[in-house]
Amino acid sequence: MGTITKALDLLNFFSRKRPAIGLSEFVKLSGRDKATVHRHLTELEENGFLQQNPETRAYRLGPAILRLSGVREATYPMRSVLRPVVRDLADTVGELVHASVLQGEMLSPVVHADPLGHGTQVHFDEGEMLPLHATSSGLAVMAFAPDAFVSRVLKAGLPGITQRTLTDAGAVRSLLNEVRATGVARLDRAFDEEVSSQGVPVFGPSGEVVGALSVAIPAVRASEEKMNAILPALCDGAVQATRALGGQMPPEHAAKWAANA
Amino acid sequence: MGTITKALDLLNFFSRKRPAIGLSEFVKLSGRDKATVHRHLTELEENGFLQQNPETRAYRLGPAILRLSGVREATYPMRSVLRPVVRDLADTVGELVHASVLQGEMLSPVVHADPLGHGTQVHFDEGEMLPLHATSSGLAVMAFAPDAFVSRVLKAGLPGITQRTLTDAGAVRSLLNEVRATGVARLDRAFDEEVSSQGVPVFGPSGEVVGALSVAIPAVRASEEKMNAILPALCDGAVQATRALGGQMPPEHAAKWAANA
Repeated sequence: MGTITKALDLLNFFSRKRPAIGLSEFVKLSGRDKATVHRHLTELEENGFLQQNPETRAYRLGPAILRLSGVREATYPMRSVLRPVVRDLADTVGELVHASVLQGEMLSPVVHADPLGHGTQVHFDEGEMLPLHATSSGLAVMAFAPDAFVSRVLKAGLPGITQRTLTDAGAVRSLLNEVRATGVARLDRAFDEEVSSQGVPVFGPSGEVVGALSVAIPAVRASEEKMNAILPALCDGAVQATRALGGQMPPEHAAKWAANA
Repeated sequence: MGTITKALDLLNFFSRKRPAIGLSEFVKLSGRDKATVHRHLTELEENGFLQQNPETRAYRLGPAILRLSGVREATYPMRSVLRPVVRDLADTVGELVHASVLQGEMLSPVVHADPLGHGTQVHFDEGEMLPLHATSSGLAVMAFAPDAFVSRVLKAGLPGITQRTLTDAGAVRSLLNEVRATGVARLDRAFDEEVSSQGVPVFGPSGEVVGALSVAIPAVRASEEKMNAILPALCDGAVQATRALGGQMPPEHAAKWAANA
């Protein structure tokens, strides 16, 4: 791991649940020595990627991140164009919906919407990267990604996150064949013991898969009937999200989502 | 300059006008050798801070920035709480308004609003850091910042950006005294040959200055009457923006903005 990666990696410890982190907590989380971590934190702070609270000495994410996300959204809008699609879908199905994009071999959340229409709701943390093999979003992406990419993901290892996570490459491959046939991935409690989800791929300008749209539902109310009832709106969402990004569904597969929507 | 700073610094070359940058352009912009720049770009890309277009090979800002800005806004909302204040003020005064926060010894733009009510309008680039001595936002911040901070800024050097930029520390100090007396900074074509502006400070929870709110107007229509007419809404904006951030106006100065608003 290079110096830059080690420093940037520290930023990934922030989440909604962990908005501020002190030096000693960074040391514990990263398992690296204090002097190195402190040097990295100082350099990140000097560049506006962190901000230190003068009283508590704890760090939070800094203003440079806001500024750069503003530049990215102004020149390559993604959150702002996906937000209405995600909100509409969440309102239609009455459950939490999130959109995420490929970053390396994980999915990076972009936006989510929570209609808060039930007594219990999935807790979604936009700060947490999603592993491909353990999420319906990830399976939807892998099913339409190039073979070489899928092989790389499967070779990198498939850690079990819950009892139900598929950790066997062969089992993942056969599930991917099903997802490719239907256009939709369903997973039951494979990433969180209490959550089921259903995901569809989102495509870029050349029909390449760039991310996914997913509905996440507390497992207790994720009956097959409910999943089936959600399907048309979700498939329509795949088309809408792809269009919003200036992309196109790959012609040889497009009928899968059109038939359901 | 450390390795991490050198790498992060490459991200600052992106702006609305320059949304995608190729390797050779990065080399030219940074004045560093190609091998080093390429290594930094690769590491930034591996961590999702950059994204490479497979066809043109040019880089743009990556999805990690979106994800991290989502975490920051969810846990320490700034853009979302300042946006309505900035929009209301822009609608009221009919001119471009922007809010920015201190990052080191520069201001980092957070959000801007442009009512587009005139034939000509200021072009504001959210990607560009604002120097303190050459902007009304910066003068408003310095006037209410600790002495040690002001001395550091003045010692670091005061580059001339236009013919009218104040480049003499004594001249800046006497202008700061005026700004401190009135609570408002006015600057005429000191950052852009065609733009005048008027800025007010924004404060944090302990009454410390954290940023600024500014109205930027094409110099051709920035008459003194117009600047005076804008003043009440701008001073009210300082109070609203400070409240939105959970801050408070420093009690010994609060009357300045209250009197105008």
